[in-house]
Amino acid sequence: MNQSSPNTDSGLDMVTGTESKLLLRALRGEACARPPIWLMRQAGRYLPEYRATRKKAPSFLDFCYTPELAVEVTLQPIRRFGFDAAILFSDIMVVPHALGQKVWFEEGRGPRLDPVAGPGELVRLSMCSLDENLAPVYETVRGIRSELGPETALIGFAGAPWTVASYMVEGGGTREFAKVKTWAYGDPEGFQKLIELLVDATTQYLESQIAAGVEVLQLFDSWAGALTANGMRQWCLDPNAEIIRRIKANHPHIPIILFPRGAGLMYRDIAAESGADAVAVDSTVPPAWVRDELQSQVAVQGNLDPILLVAGGEVLRRSATEILETLAGGPFVFNLGSGIVPEADPEHVGELVELVQGWSAR
Amino acid sequence: MNQSSPNTDSGLDMVTGTESKLLLRALRGEACARPPIWLMRQAGRYLPEYRATRKKAPSFLDFCYTPELAVEVTLQPIRRFGFDAAILFSDIMVVPHALGQKVWFEEGRGPRLDPVAGPGELVRLSMCSLDENLAPVYETVRGIRSELGPETALIGFAGAPWTVASYMVEGGGTREFAKVKTWAYGDPEGFQKLIELLVDATTQYLESQIAAGVEVLQLFDSWAGALTANGMRQWCLDPNAEIIRRIKANHPHIPIILFPRGAGLMYRDIAAESGADAVAVDSTVPPAWVRDELQSQVAVQGNLDPILLVAGGEVLRRSATEILETLAGGPFVFNLGSGIVPEADPEHVGELVELVQGWSAR
Repeated sequence: MNQSSPNTDSGLDMVTGTESKLLLRALRGEACARPPIWLMRQAGRYLPEYRATRKKAPSFLDFCYTPELAVEVTLQPIRRFGFDAAILFSDIMVVPHALGQKVWFEEGRGPRLDPVAGPGELVRLSMCSLDENLAPVYETVRGIRSELGPETALIGFAGAPWTVASYMVEGGGTREFAKVKTWAYGDPEGFQKLIELLVDATTQYLESQIAAGVEVLQLFDSWAGALTANGMRQWCLDPNAEIIRRIKANHPHIPIILFPRGAGLMYRDIAAESGADAVAVDSTVPPAWVRDELQSQVAVQGNLDPILLVAGGEVLRRSATEILETLAGGPFVFNLGSGIVPEADPEHVGELVELVQGWSAR
Repeated sequence: MNQSSPNTDSGLDMVTGTESKLLLRALRGEACARPPIWLMRQAGRYLPEYRATRKKAPSFLDFCYTPELAVEVTLQPIRRFGFDAAILFSDIMVVPHALGQKVWFEEGRGPRLDPVAGPGELVRLSMCSLDENLAPVYETVRGIRSELGPETALIGFAGAPWTVASYMVEGGGTREFAKVKTWAYGDPEGFQKLIELLVDATTQYLESQIAAGVEVLQLFDSWAGALTANGMRQWCLDPNAEIIRRIKANHPHIPIILFPRGAGLMYRDIAAESGADAVAVDSTVPPAWVRDELQSQVAVQGNLDPILLVAGGEVLRRSATEILETLAGGPFVFNLGSGIVPEADPEHVGELVELVQGWSAR
């Protein structure tokens, strides 16, 4: 019988005082005998069972808001591969949607939103019904938690303020970030109001996820790499640090992973100053640099190129092994450098999980 | 009367032995009293005179291949703003086109190509007619050179092999680089054949540009940031270093700028090992890091966020001044961190040029 106690924040084994969930041990700074592994977007279109379940909801937002379906797809990759963590199946767009913005998804085009064009339009957004609108997500968390085995950690998540703001202002994905940056540069006080609203909403959303049962949080700042160094400090580091500070004040034992994708030369400052327990790094960052410059400050997560799960074979094994050899000697969570792609081959994913879970430090 | 001699490679003043073109002085390692300025895509849609000239050609490729029109749009921003350098108006897609690949442009979607799906399809490509197909570009170079004043340097350019290969294999722009990376990872020898073809073609193309009169070269590796650290070494650093080595063997006095956009933590290795005279940096890189880590090895170019030319005003002046204060004490070329966007306001561009050209080190 496993003695872990999945209904406490600390997750500590009540009998022996040790933690059975590898992910929690790594995020608390332990160099585990072998690192935990999970993959960003592990519940996704590369899995036939996901595609089958997806068909049961008319729209992608309906899919996210139907606990029965969201629980099912969250658990699918756990059953198939035995990942060390499940991540709540949802989307970062649920926060603007719950704030009252119109959000929809177009096949192959990603999220579309009725854009918030300036500070005058912030009146269209409101925190009042946030938790009510997001109740299906919390129900999903409870559903996952009740079905998850004692070895598997449950990760909750949200988009970071800059990334969510960029979708809200641009009305969808963008390459140039012209609208959101023009606002941010031209009217920093007005833009700060949007960022502060998102800090408030994201904090509340994540705390409600904790109340429902998540044991770890990840903040996705997917578009940090679109910012200048100054901008990254102002709109990525500062708002994320504020969210982390507020959550830590109430939930000191919940580890928080920050993923400022594309932060490049700013990763070091972010690791030093954000207050996150772990920093996730994208695939451009050399693992040896991560070991030398980040891992002494925080746990690290990453950073296999997702396309290696399309290619498979020797290059997948060699690349994963290089990452393990470089980073598994310190606090480390094996993951990709960005989300898994629909073209990934589930067999390659299985081989990767086997390789990482069979790893033992030399 | 200016004594410079625009028809020699060295560009040295034949009477005094000094160089009147600021760009050439900066690229040879001189900290100029004020840095030279040009902007990537300075001949572009943000200018009404460009949009008017563009209408005279039925397609974008025709536009690039009509010397009269390409000369005209190259010179427009020089006349309007007095930039210190003109850059040949062309497109990086002319090389795959000249190799025999079908290339076309769709409004708002960028370049489209009939994709090269694997090594078996390389037979569709041939160097045989490269210079013949690109003759209009060389004629454009001669036309620009004959009209350019003695203070203004002329920059030629090409896409770097990895970036051009990614368009050739994906059949256009991509976010995930799934096809090109799957090929590169799964069949590195076959993919290397494509890279080597592009090294050969790019070298020949750039040497022919030199013969026609360009005085500086820039290699655009716009998608370097999609690569892992290992991939950046293999498919960005190595092929660019080979092109630079070959060109330097024949034209030691032609400065070469390498722009590995998004290289992040790999910028230092690239600056140290590529053989380029200058490295251009994108807007994510902190200027102080550029000064401390790159500028002692090479001249540097960059890195104002192009969206500041949409926003304008105090934030534009403050941001440009910060870059000048940090980098103008060493060999430096003022530029953007990526190409100017169509939404940029020409008045803001004028203010920026005035600020940089009026700069004097304190």
